[in-house]
Amino acid sequence: MSIKELSLEAIRDLAKNVMVANGCDAANAEALADIIYRAERDGSHSHGLFRVPGYVKALRSGKVDGKAKPTIKYLTPAIIQVDGHGCFAPLAQAVGLPALAEATEKIGIAALSLIGVHHFAALWPETEFLADRGLVGIACTAYMPSVAPAGATEALFGTNPLSFAWPRPGHNPVVYDMATASMAMGDVQIAARDGRDVPLGTGLDADGKLTTDPAAIAKGVLLPFGGYKGSAIALMVELLAAGMTGEQFSFEARENDNKDGGPPRGGEMIIGMSPALIAGDGWQDHVEGFMQKMTKIDGVRMPGERRHKNRLDKGPRQINVELIETINGLL
Amino acid sequence: MSIKELSLEAIRDLAKNVMVANGCDAANAEALADIIYRAERDGSHSHGLFRVPGYVKALRSGKVDGKAKPTIKYLTPAIIQVDGHGCFAPLAQAVGLPALAEATEKIGIAALSLIGVHHFAALWPETEFLADRGLVGIACTAYMPSVAPAGATEALFGTNPLSFAWPRPGHNPVVYDMATASMAMGDVQIAARDGRDVPLGTGLDADGKLTTDPAAIAKGVLLPFGGYKGSAIALMVELLAAGMTGEQFSFEARENDNKDGGPPRGGEMIIGMSPALIAGDGWQDHVEGFMQKMTKIDGVRMPGERRHKNRLDKGPRQINVELIETINGLL
Repeated sequence: MSIKELSLEAIRDLAKNVMVANGCDAANAEALADIIYRAERDGSHSHGLFRVPGYVKALRSGKVDGKAKPTIKYLTPAIIQVDGHGCFAPLAQAVGLPALAEATEKIGIAALSLIGVHHFAALWPETEFLADRGLVGIACTAYMPSVAPAGATEALFGTNPLSFAWPRPGHNPVVYDMATASMAMGDVQIAARDGRDVPLGTGLDADGKLTTDPAAIAKGVLLPFGGYKGSAIALMVELLAAGMTGEQFSFEARENDNKDGGPPRGGEMIIGMSPALIAGDGWQDHVEGFMQKMTKIDGVRMPGERRHKNRLDKGPRQINVELIETINGLL
Repeated sequence: MSIKELSLEAIRDLAKNVMVANGCDAANAEALADIIYRAERDGSHSHGLFRVPGYVKALRSGKVDGKAKPTIKYLTPAIIQVDGHGCFAPLAQAVGLPALAEATEKIGIAALSLIGVHHFAALWPETEFLADRGLVGIACTAYMPSVAPAGATEALFGTNPLSFAWPRPGHNPVVYDMATASMAMGDVQIAARDGRDVPLGTGLDADGKLTTDPAAIAKGVLLPFGGYKGSAIALMVELLAAGMTGEQFSFEARENDNKDGGPPRGGEMIIGMSPALIAGDGWQDHVEGFMQKMTKIDGVRMPGERRHKNRLDKGPRQINVELIETINGLL
């Protein structure tokens, strides 16, 4: 695999230009380019330029409207609903997150319900946005079914990621963003290509049997992480992201998608909480005592640490040449 | 093991009488007896009469105040703080949950922060209270450290249970309540007694090595369920139950506990959300379509199903005679 160095600004410009070339207005293109830039900056390659061809497919098929203007509605002083009217999720987030932060700072807890959006990115930008303002963030979204509930052999849940961020004024926040599937299907496919086994419990073959053979799982279904307990978490994500927003469940997204290879329409639920209002004065020192205790334990890695370290490097990033050529071909 | 049949009313009365005999006033005794009655009714034996000796230890040592009167404070219209002033958690919940439901119905999302309580019971009574009113409930609490974060060999987290309930008007709600530890330490001890191995990943021996020997784990530490992803969930619980309430982290609870064998002082975070206000009209039918799809999949068991089935039996419950004698000895 040959690579090419691109500066972070060049990455952002490339992403923006390809979005504009495929029908996005400036607001949509910039919101998406910013998310792609941040993913590459932090070393989250699978959510960076790698996603551009999928975004373009969704624009070209007309499933996503690159000129959509999200609208914001206060359902109550603590419930903000942003309808993306068919945009990619980042623009709807850019509209809704400042309002969510403001409501959370005032009321102590608030929710941002995103509907009519197409989510194809990481979720940590949402929760980290809140943590950077001293707030706690919880975010989740559903996708198309690829994960069987514990005990079953048929896919019902999406990979259903859950992100959580806790602020540490003076330090980087603790932030995670994880699929509730045992493994991303992309990683299963890479293991199959490389001839590596995957751990038992990753998924089932087409006959519903446990297997360590990734090629067999690619023809079957994934399982949730952590058995029936992880399945319960995946169920919570499905219910919050679809039942609570009123948007499509994973199975509905599959039924109604045009199968262009881009992200289906769905919802996202983002919750903000204010430790300053709920725990009150002194919360930072109290929590920092716990954080110090945890970070000093041998073998512990704090969630988000690796991304925040990658971020310190302001230099160019090494990008797969084939991917750059593919993206240039979409301009 | 010989057993004796006790009616549900006799179970409630026995629990109430032993609490009163050990210094509880009527309000404290009734709240606790009600939680014990509900646990036995639903077949949650490990949270029923089995806990009574531990409750009594905490009363006799003076750690818990059986005459404490919880106070309620609205930190904002959506944030309710109940200080138990050293009571067992159920009375503080009885004071706070109706206020939480009311705030959630009005504002769409709200939080109940319990402080100064001693929690030794299941968490599903809290979330099911909300689901019975058409609301979604999320609850969590921390305990004393017995679980090592993923990658470490030293305990930092409690068994840190998380409960979630989703309302299904016309049906029983979907409700779960699970430790974020791989297994309760009590179950590890029972496996050791019975000479059964436990799954690899349950815990570490005293040298920090993975083992299937429960006796070795009893001398070492438990692990979170589901590897580093489950560890991230256990961390979220620790932060919400202690960092967000301002109450003790698990490690602080151990440091400050009088080691009487009863539950330490801690916090609990309970979040309510209203699908009627957030998703809006039609949410029941939308979610019921998903529930019907899920329940029809072979092999799926809906969380809470077994408890709700047990509940239909209004007859007497079979209780261990030794346990009854122990409790009678505490009268």
